[in-house]
Amino acid sequence: MGVEIERKFLVPEGGSVPDGREFEVRQGYLVLGPEGAEARVRRQGEECSLTVKRGAGLVRGEWETPLSAEQFADLWPATEHARVDKTRRVVPLGPHEAVVDTYRGRLAGLRTAEVEFTDPEAAAAFTPPPWFGAEVTDRPEFKNQRLATADAPPLP
Amino acid sequence: MGVEIERKFLVPEGGSVPDGREFEVRQGYLVLGPEGAEARVRRQGEECSLTVKRGAGLVRGEWETPLSAEQFADLWPATEHARVDKTRRVVPLGPHEAVVDTYRGRLAGLRTAEVEFTDPEAAAAFTPPPWFGAEVTDRPEFKNQRLATADAPPLP
Repeated sequence: MGVEIERKFLVPEGGSVPDGREFEVRQGYLVLGPEGAEARVRRQGEECSLTVKRGAGLVRGEWETPLSAEQFADLWPATEHARVDKTRRVVPLGPHEAVVDTYRGRLAGLRTAEVEFTDPEAAAAFTPPPWFGAEVTDRPEFKNQRLATADAPPLP
Repeated sequence: MGVEIERKFLVPEGGSVPDGREFEVRQGYLVLGPEGAEARVRRQGEECSLTVKRGAGLVRGEWETPLSAEQFADLWPATEHARVDKTRRVVPLGPHEAVVDTYRGRLAGLRTAEVEFTDPEAAAAFTPPPWFGAEVTDRPEFKNQRLATADAPPLP
């Protein structure tokens, strides 16, 4: 089991985001459980994967395995109720990196940045760069699960 | 998407169950969602698989993909909260077959039979053989999900 410690911020639409490698991400939830439990499939560029998460807040349990394109195709139809399409850019940020997601489709207009940390102390010590907007780590309407089932982007 | 139509019965412990091919089944739930939604992994003999189900009652949506032993090993630790070990015997039953599960571990003493049908009419027309006990299709405490998290076998 990996443990995920991350903070999430809005990135204002008008602002300019530094360069970074970019790819298309398509993800869908197989099952959304209580207390943030989820099983989801993702295609990121050419790579497919299945991820299971459990627990909420700053620290979550996470398990992952790679999927073949055929396995992804078997499971994708099960995600019809909860899907997200976005363009992901990974921006180096000193010792960290910001994963900047620009949403497409019904969530168009939303842009977020997530930063992952190895321990809670590093998470607490992190100073957001000027191009980050408001922090939404603890705002339920910006959780990935909620975004996947939302009709429209949440209000900032 | 496949649609699953099945009925479930108890099989009294004393009674004799007809012969059939038999194998060990180990299954664990990655995520248990609302209204019977679930993602689970299973090892049945040498075959591993991932199954997603959604919906409750007689008719459920179901999606499945085979897993390699490595993928199963990646995901199995995520199921620690909800696992079931059982010996499965598949007994021919005229045009149908009965999948008879004898549970091990904390569910020892429980034995069930499931019969799957291609349509609701066939399900309604089915006459259980004399070695079947009470029907539990609609009893929530006998759902696979509940069994996986139960401390002890439910009362008949």
